[in-house]
Amino acid sequence: MSEGVVLLSGGLDSAVTAWVANQVCARLYAMTFRYGQAHDREVSCALQLGQRLGVVEHKVLGLPLDSIGGSVLFNRDEIPAGGMEEGIAPTWVPQRNSVFLALAFAWAEVLGCDRVYIGVNQVDYSGYPDCREPFIRRMEQALNLASKRWDEEGEMIRIRAPLLKKSKEEIVKLGSQLGVPFELTTSCYRGEEEACGMCDSCLIRRKAFEEAGIEDPIKYKEV
Amino acid sequence: MSEGVVLLSGGLDSAVTAWVANQVCARLYAMTFRYGQAHDREVSCALQLGQRLGVVEHKVLGLPLDSIGGSVLFNRDEIPAGGMEEGIAPTWVPQRNSVFLALAFAWAEVLGCDRVYIGVNQVDYSGYPDCREPFIRRMEQALNLASKRWDEEGEMIRIRAPLLKKSKEEIVKLGSQLGVPFELTTSCYRGEEEACGMCDSCLIRRKAFEEAGIEDPIKYKEV
Repeated sequence: MSEGVVLLSGGLDSAVTAWVANQVCARLYAMTFRYGQAHDREVSCALQLGQRLGVVEHKVLGLPLDSIGGSVLFNRDEIPAGGMEEGIAPTWVPQRNSVFLALAFAWAEVLGCDRVYIGVNQVDYSGYPDCREPFIRRMEQALNLASKRWDEEGEMIRIRAPLLKKSKEEIVKLGSQLGVPFELTTSCYRGEEEACGMCDSCLIRRKAFEEAGIEDPIKYKEV
Repeated sequence: MSEGVVLLSGGLDSAVTAWVANQVCARLYAMTFRYGQAHDREVSCALQLGQRLGVVEHKVLGLPLDSIGGSVLFNRDEIPAGGMEEGIAPTWVPQRNSVFLALAFAWAEVLGCDRVYIGVNQVDYSGYPDCREPFIRRMEQALNLASKRWDEEGEMIRIRAPLLKKSKEEIVKLGSQLGVPFELTTSCYRGEEEACGMCDSCLIRRKAFEEAGIEDPIKYKEV
């Protein structure tokens, strides 16, 4: 049976990914980052999700992505109210997934795990290039070329992105089947007690629950 | 003319790389990491090198690689006295170069630079898989697939590793020609005031200067 490290952000997609991973992994480890995002709410959600899932260990690491910048995500006041424009949304953080994957991969190698799970999705997303299959596959190759496990034993660590080609509606349905505690997930870019309901991330989430015909247990500010 | 971000560790190779980069870049930026290495000496060397070179900006970032572990480099007492055994040396840090490259690439993208420089070398090295060409080329592809610049404008950011195929002797000679202040570089894994002269890194360095017929200006403990 596999052993895996799951990147757990506290959002909907990574939570469903973690529950998927838990079905196939004998031992599951979770990794979460404080990378300068405007709110810490998602970190506390991630920790609660990891606890609920019963991961073997949950590592929370600090990363200074905010001092590199390049995203409105580092300043809550700059986060736009939805609209889903063409192209890459301004909430995109340069190379965030590359750094996350490299660190999860490093930990997987130290732990002896054979899989790293990430909740990227290229269907209902904000145009982020690091959420698409070509990137994930190329990064898997690159990280294995840098690994001792591959170099000395010829064994790859696989990057699994089980939600890659699912619609958000399908993700909600899958999460519901697996018993994901949606009330512990957070999606709002603003990260306040009640979700704003208007940022891209809230808009995508609400539409998904609506289409799936499942009630979203989190609270939104406006009706 | 190009603009670049150079990964500057304070060691010999990254210093020579920075001087090479400075020849072809109109603007050069330096990036250095405190990643939990057993000594901070290389960070102060890196800062002095950057200052001497006159980089536009020098960013020093903290990274919790030590909390992932997997290397004797995080504990000075565990660093072996040379010997250069077969295979990957125990000083290797899992995915270190992957994380460094991803962050340098992110900064290059924010700054609008077209190049990232790294001082890896696959000739006289300690068997690290992340110092070889296949990894560097694959990582360049992966990081570009994750970038906005490539996605929206079709322009790649290139990873340059000018020392990749040079022997350590050639690196010392090149550094000498370019006027690299070798006295500001540090190579010893132990990182004390005087180099130990016995760890792999010291052994490689001393041999290189000897073969190049150039005097190494740094101080070693034993004669």
